[in-house]
Formats: sequence, C-alpha cells, structure tokens
Amino acid sequence: MRFHRQTISVEEAVGKLLQQIGPLEPEEVPLAEAYGRVLARSVAAAYDLPPFDRSPLDGYAVRAEDTIGAAPQTPVTLQVVGTIAAGEVPNLVVGKGQACRIMTGAMIPEGANAVVMFEQTEHPGHMGRTVRVKRAMKPGENLSRRGEEVRQGTCVLKEGTTVGAGALALLATFGTAVVPVRRRPRVGIISTGSELIEPDQPLVPGKIRNSNSLMIAGMVRDAGGQPVLFGRMADELEEAKRQLSQWIGQVDLLVTTGGVSVGDFDVIAALVDEPEFHLLFQRVAMRPGSPTTAFVYRDKLVCALSGNPSASYVGCELFVKPVMAKLLGKEAVTPTVTDAVLAEDYLKPCPYPRYLRGRLQVRDAVLYAYPDKNDKAGMLVTLHASNCLIVIPPGGRGKQAGERVRIYPLATSEQMLF
Amino acid sequence: MRFHRQTISVEEAVGKLLQQIGPLEPEEVPLAEAYGRVLARSVAAAYDLPPFDRSPLDGYAVRAEDTIGAAPQTPVTLQVVGTIAAGEVPNLVVGKGQACRIMTGAMIPEGANAVVMFEQTEHPGHMGRTVRVKRAMKPGENLSRRGEEVRQGTCVLKEGTTVGAGALALLATFGTAVVPVRRRPRVGIISTGSELIEPDQPLVPGKIRNSNSLMIAGMVRDAGGQPVLFGRMADELEEAKRQLSQWIGQVDLLVTTGGVSVGDFDVIAALVDEPEFHLLFQRVAMRPGSPTTAFVYRDKLVCALSGNPSASYVGCELFVKPVMAKLLGKEAVTPTVTDAVLAEDYLKPCPYPRYLRGRLQVRDAVLYAYPDKNDKAGMLVTLHASNCLIVIPPGGRGKQAGERVRIYPLATSEQMLF
Repeated sequence: MRFHRQTISVEEAVGKLLQQIGPLEPEEVPLAEAYGRVLARSVAAAYDLPPFDRSPLDGYAVRAEDTIGAAPQTPVTLQVVGTIAAGEVPNLVVGKGQACRIMTGAMIPEGANAVVMFEQTEHPGHMGRTVRVKRAMKPGENLSRRGEEVRQGTCVLKEGTTVGAGALALLATFGTAVVPVRRRPRVGIISTGSELIEPDQPLVPGKIRNSNSLMIAGMVRDAGGQPVLFGRMADELEEAKRQLSQWIGQVDLLVTTGGVSVGDFDVIAALVDEPEFHLLFQRVAMRPGSPTTAFVYRDKLVCALSGNPSASYVGCELFVKPVMAKLLGKEAVTPTVTDAVLAEDYLKPCPYPRYLRGRLQVRDAVLYAYPDKNDKAGMLVTLHASNCLIVIPPGGRGKQAGERVRIYPLATSEQMLF
Repeated sequence: MRFHRQTISVEEAVGKLLQQIGPLEPEEVPLAEAYGRVLARSVAAAYDLPPFDRSPLDGYAVRAEDTIGAAPQTPVTLQVVGTIAAGEVPNLVVGKGQACRIMTGAMIPEGANAVVMFEQTEHPGHMGRTVRVKRAMKPGENLSRRGEEVRQGTCVLKEGTTVGAGALALLATFGTAVVPVRRRPRVGIISTGSELIEPDQPLVPGKIRNSNSLMIAGMVRDAGGQPVLFGRMADELEEAKRQLSQWIGQVDLLVTTGGVSVGDFDVIAALVDEPEFHLLFQRVAMRPGSPTTAFVYRDKLVCALSGNPSASYVGCELFVKPVMAKLLGKEAVTPTVTDAVLAEDYLKPCPYPRYLRGRLQVRDAVLYAYPDKNDKAGMLVTLHASNCLIVIPPGGRGKQAGERVRIYPLATSEQMLF
C-alpha cells in the first residue's frame, strides 16, 4: 500500500472520522467543578429573572402620579414611610403622597410604580421624614420587572456549551448545584521513531528529543480532553500490535505521531496492512501531513499523524480536535473557517492545499493573516506564536499579498487573537 | 464621599492599579505540569536545531555530482552501500557512484550532499544492490542543515509567554525538564449584599442567588489565577474590617462585588472612609460600573467591582485581568484594543464611555461587532455568548451601524472568536 495510496480531501477525511463516533456518556459534577466542561443537557430558567419587581438603583420608590410637575426648581415633597434594603420583603404600602427609601436590588413595595434615584432628590444622604423629588417620573420608570430578563422555562444554555465564566453565572443564578456534563475524552498519545529520546534524557548523536507527545498533550487539554502519555511504540510489528491491544482499552481515542510514511521502519504504515485494523484513509490532500492515516481498532479511532512537528500540529488541529469536539458533544464540531487578507506574498506552489501557520492582525477593521516564514514541516520554533492556519489553494502560484485567503482561527491558552 | 466622588478614566484607573504591583516570585515546575503557566525566564536554544544535518524525507543520500543528467528516461545507476535509520549514527561514507538508503530524520552520512526521495527512484520499495535515480540533484537539495531552524543560544521563548502546546514542544525539544514559571496569583473573591443566597440554597422571596462569585472565579481561572472563594462580607463595618484583615493575608489580590454605590448598606463605600484603607479611586468614567472602587490594604490591592452581573463582568475584564497579567509577569498586560465595524445601530446616549458586550463576526475579511441587545447592567443571560466589549464613546447619539468602533476581544475557554 505504501506507494499507491488513495488520496482524499481534508473535508472527506474529517467526515470519515466523525462518522465513527458519537458523544461520550454524561456525568454529573458539582457546580464548583463545572468550569471548562461541556454541558450534556440544555439548561432552562428555573424561574423568572428577576424573580420579583425590583429597584435597579438606590433611591425612593414613589407613585409616578405624585411627581407630576416635579423639577429642580419646583420639587415635590413626599412623606417617607420606610426603608427597604435588598433582600427584605417590604411590609408597607406606598400610598398617595408617600415615598419609600429603597436600595439597589430591593423588592418594589406595593403602591409604588417608579423609583427616583437619590441624585434626583434633595439631600440624598439624609434620612428625613420627607423627601423632595426634583424630577417628574413616568409610571414604570426605573423598575426592573419580574421576568423582564428571562421567563421561567426559557432555554438559557444549550447542550454542547462549554462552561466558562458567563455560563457559571447562569448556573449559579438558577441553583444548578449539580451540572450534567460530558465525560472528558481520554486521549492516548503515542510516539513512534527510533530517533526519539524523552525530554529528560541526555541528548546523544543522531537522536532528537520527542516534542510531539507533549505538544499533542497540550492541544488535547486545549480541547477539553485528558491526555494519557503512553510513550513510544515499538518499531517491530508484533510488539507494536501487543502494545496497541493493551492501550486501546484505556482510552477513547488514540493519537500517534510518525511512522506513517514510506520509510523502511514506518510501523504505522505496516500495521494498517494487518487484518484487525480497519483503515479509514492513508493519504490526505494537504501539506504538511499528506501521509496522515486513520484507522479503527476495536471500535475506537486511531488518528496517526505525520511525525514532523508542524504536520503533527496541523493534523491535530484538523483531525483530532473535531473528533474530540464530537466526543464532547460540542455545539460546533469543526472550526469556523473565515476569510482574511493575506498580508505578505506566499508564492510557493504546492500540488495540495497547504495549511500554513500564521498570525492574525486587525487593522482598520480588516483581518490580515501573516504567513509564518518559518513554516517548513519540521519547524517548531514559531509554532507557539501561530494563531491561525492559512489555507493556500493547490496548484498555480501560491497567493500574493492582498489576496483573500481562507483561515482557521486557533484559539488556545496561549494564542489570543490579534 | 459617597455623593461627591472624583471621576477618572478607565485608562487612568488601570494605570493606578498597575503602579501598585509587580510580578509574583518565580517557582519551578516539572515540564509535564507547565501547561497554562507563564514563563518567569526567557528560554534559549540549548543547542542547534536540528542538532545535525539530517534527511527530511525517505530516500537515498547521494553525491549530487553523480546524478548529473539523470531523468526518468535516462536514470543514473548508483551502488547502494547501506541503510541509515533515524536515530543511528552512520558508520559509512558515500563515495563516487554510491548511494545510501536513508530514512526521514536520519543523519546524513559523510560524502553525501543531497537526498533523492524514493518516488524519484525506480522500485522504491525494493532494497537492491543498486538504485536507479531519475532526477538530477543540486548540492544541498533535500538536506536539513544543522542549526537551520535555530542556532544554539537564540531566545526561543520570551519571559512572560503563557505555556501552551507550541511552547511545550520547544521546552521538550531543548530538554527543559524543570520550567521556571510565575506563581499563580491567589485571588480572593468576596460578595456583598444581604439579598444574596448561595447557589445551593433554596430561593426565598426578596433574595437572589449569588452569581458573581462563581463568574469571577471562572474569569480568574481564564486569566491563569487560583480563585479563593471567601463568601459574603458582613454589612456591618467593624465585622467587615475583621473579615478583611483575616482574608487579605491569604491572597495576592482581593476582588469584591457590590457595596460600592450610594446605598445605605453599601459596606465598601463605608470601608474606604476608614484610615487603614488607601483609596485609589471610587468612580470611573464608564458604563456599566461607574462606582468601581479600588484601594490598597496592607500592601495588597482590593478591586471592588460594581455588583450587578454585567458591571462585575466588565470590571473584572478591564481591571482585574490586567492586574493578574502583571502579577503573572505576562508579556502583554492590557488587552489589545482593535477596530471593528458596528453591525447594528446602538443609539443609546451615555455621559461616559459604554463598554457594551458584543459578538465578533468576520465577513469578507472585515471584522463586524454585534452589540448585545440585552446589555442592561443587570443582565446575565447573554454574558456567556459575548466575545468582545464594544466601546461606545460618551456623549452624542451613540453609534450607527457601519461606523467604526473600538473593541476589546475577549478570549476565554468558552468564547472563541467568530
């Protein structure tokens, strides 16, 4: 198979992967541990919000009809019948000619239909028996009505939402003490290649340190999964099969890097010729990473990424992240591709679409994409500074500065846009 | 002080906060735990990368001069003197008329100065005594030279970089087994207001659940800090002072929500009149959140945010996050403000700049900002869907659709751009 592989597009390849899987089972976590998790069920408003008519500011609850004609030069004097603090249930009624001192968030007392802010009264700090109101109020002015923000039963958070600060606020408000979320996918990470030594081992001639496994682990964490580092796969076929049969049961997805090409010792390329592995694809129309391979083993997906750092990175972004998003039941499974203006020439022709690392910048509301000038497949020095992939279409002459390009934005812990 | 506060701009307020603090002390963590942390020291390349001349593909290492005139119809036959796997140190020399089978990542043997890929030879899968090369090679073609990616000693990661997948790859490559990072800031979170009950308590009339504390905790985590939830501050001044004196020693920064306004029970407004608190500001030219207050207590900063959800959110974004970024020694302390096109009218006039929640979208490479139509200060239903703050300048008539606006992009775990 090595030299005669069928080539499919990135989109077809992603489609083949996603067909194999569905969302993981839900589990329940306490609200305080829900940060970063993905909701397994939509959340509806448990009651009206606000739950009662309340004052949005500090002032006096009044009857609007009592303030007709009130102005700085012609204030209206009202009798103060009490004070309502936030959290209290008022035990008074505001009658004709009366007002009630009221604090932000407090329940509107019966009889009142507007709130005058302190600053529109005389001597606001003073708690006297009367208050002089300097402004005519309209009925309903400065009232937050029960249910005006959201009505009981309305869906406020959709299944598939990742729980961040804003979602935490909503879950807290509606008293969701236990949150139904998807189990985090366990993603096994395996390296291949006899040239690799681990980061804590001394460097020796001919070897390089394994940078892919920790990089993929970081990307798995970015995507909401739990990386499980299995170390290096044996070069020898039977031993590699034995390892895989041990590892596959411990995870929801396996990601390997390297060994997918046409080299004499490329173990993945050898594995997929074995009958127990169901090959999905072995060649994708893309650069870097055209030998990217995927297969199914014991009902689980194995994404076998090309081994050089840039190809592993792009492959993880294009293939592993959508798979993880689907396992997590996320609302959006594939990234939103958008348009940008290419900021600098990229004139290298390529038979396949090239997924070029780059950096986005906004100037005058226009989105510019700067290609990474160090984007050789092996290059990892500029990886950490990329925040998009720029798609250079195949054939022709590349793209010139000023031309429109498609981009995949990459939003991760280190890659803020702009 | 309550009714006669001096107003300063957001930029001045941020400046006053940042003046008070510097980066926290560094600490060392194992590489596997460095994800998400901020580098406390720059990292230089420990050696040339690649560390030796190597082959970027699977093929044959040759002497370019031996392939002159080679073409599909006129292949050149070379004698194969061996195979070099990745990770091996070659123990052979490629002489005149010779070639050596070589795998991706393997060291280039002495004598060779180019690599012909398998696909440009005859019968690539076949390991014969000779190989027929179908292409004339240039000296240096398909060689990755030692140091071509980065030279030993070059700075590859700057102090202040947040460690994500790409940085992990670099740290692994250079064998940084122990990583110097900033200690995570411990951020104490305190709520105020007698109307608040906690998310796990039953709702009773007049009360609402505390949503701010968990929301701020989420934002603190977004920003790389450790939230410490202290619960509710007493309304009574002496008890509140006793609490603060206990709590302040346990954290690097305190954030409170509520109690900053002109209400009768606003405990923060009362606290800052006390001599042991050094007031920095008590009114900021912004909506929502103009009563935002900050003070120094026992050499630590206390950011006292306005209590309604939207104001707390904006205040945390504008004030707490830059403070945390400086404590973490991040490269960029304040967010990069950029321009977008306002996608819909926002015609509400305001005496102060308004920091309106919104959502960014790219169409035809132009960045559009959609204002959140539910952006009342109390509104939290749409918080989780915002991914930017749109700045509506003060005075006048707001902004019309199509006008240029300044935006603060918000990149968090839930808020992917576009």
